Amino acid sequence: MKILLIGASGTIGSVVLEEMKKDAEIITAGIENSDITVDTTSPESIKQMYEQVGTVDAIVNTAGIEHYGFLKEMTPEQNQIAVQSKLSGQVNLVLLGMDALSDNGSFTLTTGILMDDPIVKGASAAMANGGVRAFVKSAAIEMPRGLRINHVSPTILEVSVEKNGHLFEGFEPVSSRRIGLAYRKSILGAQTGEGIYVY
Amino acid sequence: MKILLIGASGTIGSVVLEEMKKDAEIITAGIENSDITVDTTSPESIKQMYEQVGTVDAIVNTAGIEHYGFLKEMTPEQNQIAVQSKLSGQVNLVLLGMDALSDNGSFTLTTGILMDDPIVKGASAAMANGGVRAFVKSAAIEMPRGLRINHVSPTILEVSVEKNGHLFEGFEPVSSRRIGLAYRKSILGAQTGEGIYVY
Repeated sequence: MKILLIGASGTIGSVVLEEMKKDAEIITAGIENSDITVDTTSPESIKQMYEQVGTVDAIVNTAGIEHYGFLKEMTPEQNQIAVQSKLSGQVNLVLLGMDALSDNGSFTLTTGILMDDPIVKGASAAMANGGVRAFVKSAAIEMPRGLRINHVSPTILEVSVEKNGHLFEGFEPVSSRRIGLAYRKSILGAQTGEGIYVY
Repeated sequence: MKILLIGASGTIGSVVLEEMKKDAEIITAGIENSDITVDTTSPESIKQMYEQVGTVDAIVNTAGIEHYGFLKEMTPEQNQIAVQSKLSGQVNLVLLGMDALSDNGSFTLTTGILMDDPIVKGASAAMANGGVRAFVKSAAIEMPRGLRINHVSPTILEVSVEKNGHLFEGFEPVSSRRIGLAYRKSILGAQTGEGIYVY
């Protein structure tokens, strides 16, 4: 099995890499420190990545950034960060990537708890997550050749508490192990159009 | 009571206008045939609109376009239509419009059934709807001065069946009366962060 993992050097990407590397050949992609360099905010860069990748059995994206800031102070430009990266970036990985998947292959995108359980400063992230969730549900009914698509929605990870815990007061952090299992379920399971919630 | 209604000349906008005109002074805005001309895909145009409007008690948006097309054929550029209009357009109306609302005023945005009940060709619309829903839920917890924010999620209207019914096979069309009531509930009710689903 061959997996293309975009965002492999990030916190969640590293977890997925650790979880799946015993079972699959993993091609890593990302802004840096990866087999293939890609900027998911650029459709052209995504196309170039797929040209280098050839055919894989699973495409997993854990890349995507968002602006965290008070709603009252947030500008349209700041909101565009999540629009272009976490939302459009992930949608474009699907629109441009179907031909890179073998029959019955799968996409796994990444959303997040903020669409269900909001925090102060999290409106832009919530927006992007909610957009990806709805896209996944809808795209699943049109996937050709048995392709599947799901999203994993993590809450804050134990390993991220030191850096980001102040934003997530009262949220119960989850282990990297549980996060890895969610991606494993999406990649090796049979469901499609679903969210796998790690809350 | 004074309402700013963006998209007033569209199908749903006309319904809202009819429903609310007995109870409020309505300032209409839109691409054409409106008191104020605005293109919600442009933050600059939104800012100019708000400068002309002054203060209102409710801001209602029914404007927003989406590309409908097969997922397999959809390009990033086509997906951007909904990203810029139905999604970012509505978010920017909120980010730039809080100061235009009187204390305890409200935003009412428009989503749609496709985020919950997908159709072929509807993935981009679903994405935009889902993004707006999650944004509304999150933005509500940060609204200053008692401001509220909700979204109305319509299914296909009876008046739209002739034109668009072929895309919505098996969907039960709803009356314009029910749609109007949903916006009325958001504008004159007290809830916030909610979706009002007219399915």
